[in-house]
Amino acid sequence: MNDPGRRLPSGSEPVPDPADGPTDGPAGGLTGARSSDRTRAAILRAARAHFARHGYERTTIRAVAADAAIDASMVMRYFGSKENLFDAALTIDLRLPDLAAVARDDLPRVLVRHFLDRWEGDPADDALLLLLRSAVTHERAAERMREIFAEQVAPALGEAVDPRRAGLVSAQLLGLALTRYLLRAPGVTALTPDEVTELYAPALAAVLS
Amino acid sequence: MNDPGRRLPSGSEPVPDPADGPTDGPAGGLTGARSSDRTRAAILRAARAHFARHGYERTTIRAVAADAAIDASMVMRYFGSKENLFDAALTIDLRLPDLAAVARDDLPRVLVRHFLDRWEGDPADDALLLLLRSAVTHERAAERMREIFAEQVAPALGEAVDPRRAGLVSAQLLGLALTRYLLRAPGVTALTPDEVTELYAPALAAVLS
Repeated sequence: MNDPGRRLPSGSEPVPDPADGPTDGPAGGLTGARSSDRTRAAILRAARAHFARHGYERTTIRAVAADAAIDASMVMRYFGSKENLFDAALTIDLRLPDLAAVARDDLPRVLVRHFLDRWEGDPADDALLLLLRSAVTHERAAERMREIFAEQVAPALGEAVDPRRAGLVSAQLLGLALTRYLLRAPGVTALTPDEVTELYAPALAAVLS
Repeated sequence: MNDPGRRLPSGSEPVPDPADGPTDGPAGGLTGARSSDRTRAAILRAARAHFARHGYERTTIRAVAADAAIDASMVMRYFGSKENLFDAALTIDLRLPDLAAVARDDLPRVLVRHFLDRWEGDPADDALLLLLRSAVTHERAAERMREIFAEQVAPALGEAVDPRRAGLVSAQLLGLALTRYLLRAPGVTALTPDEVTELYAPALAAVLS
């Protein structure tokens, strides 16, 4: 089954978001800190789903709290305001692999594959979807997107890559996400992850070389 | 001066939008049909600027009418509803050149250049900006974007191009527009149109070949 759109926010069960810190530990034996981590993660997960689906303006603290099954006052205690909650929801670790250890020839394929895996197979996907959707209409989210590329993608590509080329690699990866997950262009969604990797990696290679 | 963002909607003077039909003719000697074309074009231009800047929800017929310097009832007479006005604002002719006449090796360069010229040098730019921004949040606009690629880009690339590859070419062109005009990623906005063409055309070539 190849349904790249399946990561759209839904009323999914509250599995811990691995992007939000450690949440393991014996059930029922959580320390206060871990319980707090879990609550924070549950709020963020609900917030990302709401912001992604309804946009910033139409998302309310009350609705997020209801989805996270806690009181709205707790959301305020953890995040202070809707604006801060939005900021926190846009904080994303792409978890890029150590690209310095990847052979230069393999880099394009590894990058494409990593992004496909992040979008299609990870419970933190809502965060990426939210970021992309918000960045187009909110300057704050666009700024966050620029930071993520400056602080995570560009350095990961290493010193050998001209920053101008790093920017165009970002353009290619975001264009792929845009057409496959948001616009759902049939020509792009029809491809399996393997096909996308095979067809698109040479394009990244062309920009990088 | 290289400022790819200069096409953001502004209170620019109401020059006729060439995408909206013939508007030439002797000043003061317009036929009724030509006057009607001009009014329609003025409304569309104002509508695109408003929708692009404020989004669908916060755009009002009244504000569009005020910007077009006509009565709101006239906007309703021409377009019937805000929804229809939005639809009309999203109707875009990419005016792709006859790509069948372009040598296969030149195709990537011609395509990149055409899109840069459309975005950066054309009074109809607001329409493209609006379409891209809206498509991320409105299903109706996303559908319009898919139509434009299916009806204009894919056929222009010709029968020789596998539809899967045409989709990925669209991904590359939209990714460029997204990072350069909406996110304004510094690594991408710093490039001149010539540099973008030089660096990005080989990437399109890699997908097409």
